[in-house]
Amino acid sequence: MAESARKFERIAFVASEVPEALAARDRLVARYGNVEPKEADAIVALGGDGLMLQTLHRFMGDRIPIYGMNRGSVGFLMNEFAEIDLIGRLQRAVITEIHPLAMKATDESGTCHKGLAINEVALFRQTYQAAKLALSVNGQVRLEELICDGVLVATPAGSTAYNLSANGPIVPINAQLLALTPISAFRPRRWRGALLANTARIGINVLEPAKRPVSAVADNLEFRSIVQVEISQASDIDLYMMFDPDHDLDERILSEQFRY
Amino acid sequence: MAESARKFERIAFVASEVPEALAARDRLVARYGNVEPKEADAIVALGGDGLMLQTLHRFMGDRIPIYGMNRGSVGFLMNEFAEIDLIGRLQRAVITEIHPLAMKATDESGTCHKGLAINEVALFRQTYQAAKLALSVNGQVRLEELICDGVLVATPAGSTAYNLSANGPIVPINAQLLALTPISAFRPRRWRGALLANTARIGINVLEPAKRPVSAVADNLEFRSIVQVEISQASDIDLYMMFDPDHDLDERILSEQFRY
Amino acid sequence: MAESARKFERIAFVASEVPEALAARDRLVARYGNVEPKEADAIVALGGDGLMLQTLHRFMGDRIPIYGMNRGSVGFLMNEFAEIDLIGRLQRAVITEIHPLAMKATDESGTCHKGLAINEVALFRQTYQAAKLALSVNGQVRLEELICDGVLVATPAGSTAYNLSANGPIVPINAQLLALTPISAFRPRRWRGALLANTARIGINVLEPAKRPVSAVADNLEFRSIVQVEISQASDIDLYMMFDPDHDLDERILSEQFRY
Amino acid sequence: MAESARKFERIAFVASEVPEALAARDRLVARYGNVEPKEADAIVALGGDGLMLQTLHRFMGDRIPIYGMNRGSVGFLMNEFAEIDLIGRLQRAVITEIHPLAMKATDESGTCHKGLAINEVALFRQTYQAAKLALSVNGQVRLEELICDGVLVATPAGSTAYNLSANGPIVPINAQLLALTPISAFRPRRWRGALLANTARIGINVLEPAKRPVSAVADNLEFRSIVQVEISQASDIDLYMMFDPDHDLDERILSEQFRY
Repeated sequence: MAESARKFERIAFVASEVPEALAARDRLVARYGNVEPKEADAIVALGGDGLMLQTLHRFMGDRIPIYGMNRGSVGFLMNEFAEIDLIGRLQRAVITEIHPLAMKATDESGTCHKGLAINEVALFRQTYQAAKLALSVNGQVRLEELICDGVLVATPAGSTAYNLSANGPIVPINAQLLALTPISAFRPRRWRGALLANTARIGINVLEPAKRPVSAVADNLEFRSIVQVEISQASDIDLYMMFDPDHDLDERILSEQFRY
Repeated sequence: MAESARKFERIAFVASEVPEALAARDRLVARYGNVEPKEADAIVALGGDGLMLQTLHRFMGDRIPIYGMNRGSVGFLMNEFAEIDLIGRLQRAVITEIHPLAMKATDESGTCHKGLAINEVALFRQTYQAAKLALSVNGQVRLEELICDGVLVATPAGSTAYNLSANGPIVPINAQLLALTPISAFRPRRWRGALLANTARIGINVLEPAKRPVSAVADNLEFRSIVQVEISQASDIDLYMMFDPDHDLDERILSEQFRY
Repeated sequence: MAESARKFERIAFVASEVPEALAARDRLVARYGNVEPKEADAIVALGGDGLMLQTLHRFMGDRIPIYGMNRGSVGFLMNEFAEIDLIGRLQRAVITEIHPLAMKATDESGTCHKGLAINEVALFRQTYQAAKLALSVNGQVRLEELICDGVLVATPAGSTAYNLSANGPIVPINAQLLALTPISAFRPRRWRGALLANTARIGINVLEPAKRPVSAVADNLEFRSIVQVEISQASDIDLYMMFDPDHDLDERILSEQFRY
Repeated sequence: MAESARKFERIAFVASEVPEALAARDRLVARYGNVEPKEADAIVALGGDGLMLQTLHRFMGDRIPIYGMNRGSVGFLMNEFAEIDLIGRLQRAVITEIHPLAMKATDESGTCHKGLAINEVALFRQTYQAAKLALSVNGQVRLEELICDGVLVATPAGSTAYNLSANGPIVPINAQLLALTPISAFRPRRWRGALLANTARIGINVLEPAKRPVSAVADNLEFRSIVQVEISQASDIDLYMMFDPDHDLDERILSEQFRY
C-alpha cells in the first residue's frame, strides 16, 4: 500500500444499473471524458460493493486500479461520492493491492470448474441433508469429518462479509492470513475454524456426495454437485483498489472491528 | 413425565436397515413375540436417533409409547441395548410427552404444504443468494429484514440438534419454550435469535423469493421455493418416548449442557 | 401476570439522587400526596434500573407493587415518565411477579453470608489467578473443575443484564428457568453454560481458595474470599413490578431478543 | 524460524518444584552436566507451561534459547520428555523467535509500573463494579466507553490461552498481529474485539477509577488500582523457544485450531 505516483489522464467509468448511478456516470463522463476500460489509467466504478466486486472480476487480469464512488446501498469498498476534483482524488488515493482466491471445483461428473474469489470461496449443502466434509491444509488432513451446513475460506477483504456472519474473525487487510470458517458446525460441535497462512492450500473433500450434495461458490459464481475443491491464493493476480487517504481499506477494516 | 402404570404385554419391534439392528430385532421377536404396531402397548425401536425420529413420525397420531434401544451411531434418544428384562424395563420406564411443531409452507405456485417436526422447522437458502426473511411472532413483525443463510425453530427435544450447531441454546425438555435461531445472520449482524413461549405462532415471509429461493424443512421433509411459512406447536398431538429412569430425556438434555 | 384489580389510593414516591428524579418526585408528591412506603398501595420509583433494583431490595418482604418511571440513564425496568393520569396508569398496569435468588456464601473463616438477588448471583476471581470451581446441581456434581474468571446464575429478569455480557441466553420472564453461565471458561474450553429448572439448587465449591480467592456477589452485595456458595430461587418471596400494558416485562424481554 | 546451526555444548537445566521434574533434572545433569544459565548454549526447562513462562521471564534479556521438556500438567510449549539424545534433539530443533508485550501501567497515585508479557496483558475489575474503559489504538480513540469485566491484549503465542477463554481468535505464530479481546463486554454489547497489527500501540484509560477499580496484569505480574495502561510489542527483546521439528510452535497453534 503506497500513495500512487501514477498519472490519471484517461478514466473509464462503469456504473450499476440503478438510476442514481447511471445519472452520476453521465455527469462525470461529461466533465472528465471516458475511455475504454482496458486503455484507462483508472476505472471509476459508480454503485455499491456489488458493482465493485463485479468490476474487479471483469478486469481481473488487467492490472488497472479501480476507484469506487458510492451510489449504492452498501459502500464498504466505496469512496464518498463527489463530482469535483476527481483527478486530484485519484492522485492522492492510496492503492491497496489484493489477491483473489483461486478455486478448482470438481463435480460428480469429473468436470473441473475454475473460479476466482475476491471475498470468499464457500461450500454449501444443496438440500436438507447436512454436508459431510474432510478438510486438509497443505495436503495434510486436519479434520476427517466435519458435519455442517458448509465451510468458507475468506480473504482479509472478504472477512467482513459472509465470514463475519458465520462468526469468523475480521482480519486486517495486510495480515498474511486466510480465514477458514465453518457454517453451523454440527460435529465437531462448536468448532470455530482457523486462521491460516495465506500460502496455505486448502483441500475439501465432499463425503457421501450423492446423499449429501454440496455446491461450491467463488464470490457469486456457483457450481452444483461438487465432490472436491482446492483453494489457494492466486498470488500472481494483482488487483488494485484505490481509497481516499484516511479512509483506506486498512482503516475501514480496523474501524469495522470497533463497530457494534 | 411420570412412571408409567401401563401394562406392556403386546410389543411391536421396528429396526433400522443395518445388520446389527436387524439381528437384534430377530432375537427380540423370538424372545418376546411381535404384534402389529397399531395394536401394540409399546413400540420398541432398534437403531439410532434417525430411526427414533422416523418411528415417531410414522405413528404420529397413534398415541403409542416408543422405547428406543441403541443399535445405531447416534443414540441421544435411545436407551442402552439389552435383550433381557425388556418387560421390566418398559414397566419401570419414564414416559416423556412431547409435541411436534406444525409447519404450513406456501410455495411460489400458491400450493400449501404441511409437515410435522419433532426436532425443528428450518428455512434455508437454495442457491448462493442469501435469504431475505421477515419474521413475525403472534402476528407482530419483529424483524423486517433478516439477511441470512436461514432460520430455524426448534423444540426442546430438537434444541440439542441443528439448533445447537447454529449456536442456539439447549432448552430443558419441560421448559415451555421454542428456540428461534438464525443461521449465519448477515444483517442484523450478530443477531442471536430468541427464546419464545411455546404458544407462539411464528410467521416467516421470504422476501425476493425469485432471486433468493428458499426451502423449508420439517425434520427431513423438504419443500422447495417457499414464499411463506407458519410454525406453531401442535398441542393436540401427543408423542410418548420412554426412557430408563435416571437416564430420562430431561436428564439427557441437562447432562448435554454440561458436555464439552 | 394479570391486570390488577387492586385500588391505588395511597402512593409512596422514592427517587434516585439525580436532580431530574428529585424534581419529578416533588411535583408528583404535590399532585398525588405521599405516604410511608410500608403503608402504600403502590410505590412509585423515579430513576433508572439501578433505583428499581434498590427499591425492590429495600421493600423485599413487603409485597407492595412497585411502578417505575424513567428518570435515569437505563430504563429497561421503567415505564415512560408522565405526571398526569398516574392513578389510571396504576390501575391499568400489568403486575409481574418475580422471585429473587437466595445466596448463602461461606467465607474462608467459616462465616455464612446471605444475600438476595433480583438479577444474578455471580462468583468472580479476586486476583489474576483464574478461579477453579466445582459445580453441582441438586446435589449432583456436574462439573468437577471449571477453570474460569467466574460463573453466574441469572433469573429471567436478570438474563438481559450481566448474563447477556457473558454470552448467556435471554430468558422469557415466564419461563421457569435459571441461566447458569460461565465467565471466560478456560477449561472445559468453550463450555457455554446451561439453562436449569428454577427449582434447581446450585452449589459451587471454590477449589484452592487460598491461591485462587473468589468473591460472591448477589446483585450489588459482595462478599470476599468465599469458599462455598448455595443458590436457589426464594419462592417464598414475591416481588411485584408494575408495567403499562403493551410494554410489560414479558414484552420488553421479548423485544430485547430482537434488538441488535 | 529456522533450524539452528548453533552448537550445544554447555547446557543449563532448570526444573519446577514437583518431584517428577526434580528427579528428571538430576538424571539429566548426571548425564549431560550443568552450567550456569547465563553461560549456557541452551537452557533446558523441565516442567509445564508455567515453568516455561517463568524461565522465559527469568532470562528475558539473555538471548539464550530455551528447550522445554514436559514434566508438568500442561505442556503446550513443551517437547516430549526423553533422557536420551538430548544434544541431537537440540541440534535438530527449530527455534521460534517471539517478542513480549511491554506494559506501562500508571496507578492512582501516579506511580508507573512496567511489566513484560509473553502471553497477554489483561485489565480486570477488582470489585463487583463493572470496569469502564476507553480504548485507543495508535493514539486514536476507537471505543470511548467499554463497560465490561475487562479487556486483554494477547500475542500469537498467548492467543491459545486466556484470549481463547474470552472467545478471542487463535492467531498463527507468524502472523504480525495482536488480539485485542474484551472480557464480558456489557456495552457495546456483543463487541467481539479486534485483530491489530503488531506495531499497534494500545492505550487504555480507566474511567471512574475510584468507583470502579481495575487491576492490570502482565502474564502473572499484577498491579492494582490502575488508571492508565500503554501496551505495545517490545520488538527489541528477542526470546527463543526450541521445538522438535514437526512439532514446532507454528504446527502446535495450527493443530490447536483444529482441536475441539
